Amino acid sequence: MSITARRRERVRAVLKGRLGSVVVILEAVHRRHNASAILRSCECFGLHEVHLISGDFKPSKGAARGSERWLEVVGHPDTATCLTKLKGRGFQIYAADLSQGAYTPDTVPISGKVAILMGAELTGVSDEARALVDGFICVPMRGMTESLNVSVAAACIISRIAERKHEAVGRGDLDTARLEDFFSAWEAREEEAAQGMAAREAILPE
Amino acid sequence: MSITARRRERVRAVLKGRLGSVVVILEAVHRRHNASAILRSCECFGLHEVHLISGDFKPSKGAARGSERWLEVVGHPDTATCLTKLKGRGFQIYAADLSQGAYTPDTVPISGKVAILMGAELTGVSDEARALVDGFICVPMRGMTESLNVSVAAACIISRIAERKHEAVGRGDLDTARLEDFFSAWEAREEEAAQGMAAREAILPE
Repeated sequence: MSITARRRERVRAVLKGRLGSVVVILEAVHRRHNASAILRSCECFGLHEVHLISGDFKPSKGAARGSERWLEVVGHPDTATCLTKLKGRGFQIYAADLSQGAYTPDTVPISGKVAILMGAELTGVSDEARALVDGFICVPMRGMTESLNVSVAAACIISRIAERKHEAVGRGDLDTARLEDFFSAWEAREEEAAQGMAAREAILPE
Repeated sequence: MSITARRRERVRAVLKGRLGSVVVILEAVHRRHNASAILRSCECFGLHEVHLISGDFKPSKGAARGSERWLEVVGHPDTATCLTKLKGRGFQIYAADLSQGAYTPDTVPISGKVAILMGAELTGVSDEARALVDGFICVPMRGMTESLNVSVAAACIISRIAERKHEAVGRGDLDTARLEDFFSAWEAREEEAAQGMAAREAILPE
């Protein structure tokens, strides 16, 4: 059993629609359920790359729905390392926060590369991150309970920025070399899984 | 201790920004965490009324963040009863679903009263609801994992529709009589709580 042409086409089409210029950073989202829901949203809205600062996170299978297999998930030991690397690659970093004068998902500048940092559920963005980011972003709210669930806030931000960016770039803007690398790695994993399955079938009694 | 003038003003201002013309129906969102996160999003985005068909739901305190106290939450024994009542009040009902030809949060008609129905996490919208709704709505997705967490999907739909409706009506559109009823009920609860607190303080030793 090898990969069908149709599946290859589908994966390639999704990757061609991917945004390389928008990434998400999870600084310290402690609940696996929330972090996994955020990974799932990133993948659904066409992002390619997610950065995790909280060292040893493993996505919870149900909540992530396997989306982590379709993303480049990069781990970092601490906030400064992660943010310095992304700045070095030309990203403008915006932390999700209720700060005065924060941008909204509609007003945040998206002409360049954009990184959105989500802080911890209760304590929010760290002081270290605050000192390093280029600005803040928040979802406009009109209620008495002025706080959204972290995965909900992330989705509202990501969906709108991805939509604006997709409109701006036409389709996707993931670098061709990275797209091909990701595609080849996927093919290799699928072939390996298929061979493993064939080997297991061969030793089963009829 | 009575309610401060500032708090009264704040509550009144939030209620004046409320939308009476957009409601959410939770047909059978089984996980309390998800249902509570949806209530919280409704309140944060300025909705006033949420309908629950899954009979005996109680919001989980953490996830709802007390938002249920700021909403009119209406229970119904079954789908037909709920949808028939809302239709009788002039609501157009759209079910969240990946149907062909579904509206998006940007295209769904919002000139009249709009009800958004969210189905169960795994099984989706019931056949009974499908037969009764006026149309379908889905969040545009571009990934391999074409399914968002139900509370994330709800938030993406609600935030965009509320935003469009707020733009259309200027501020809020909650009926004045309902606004005053809700405000009086809130005042009464606060006064009662304050009296209870004063009584408990009076019997504490100095």
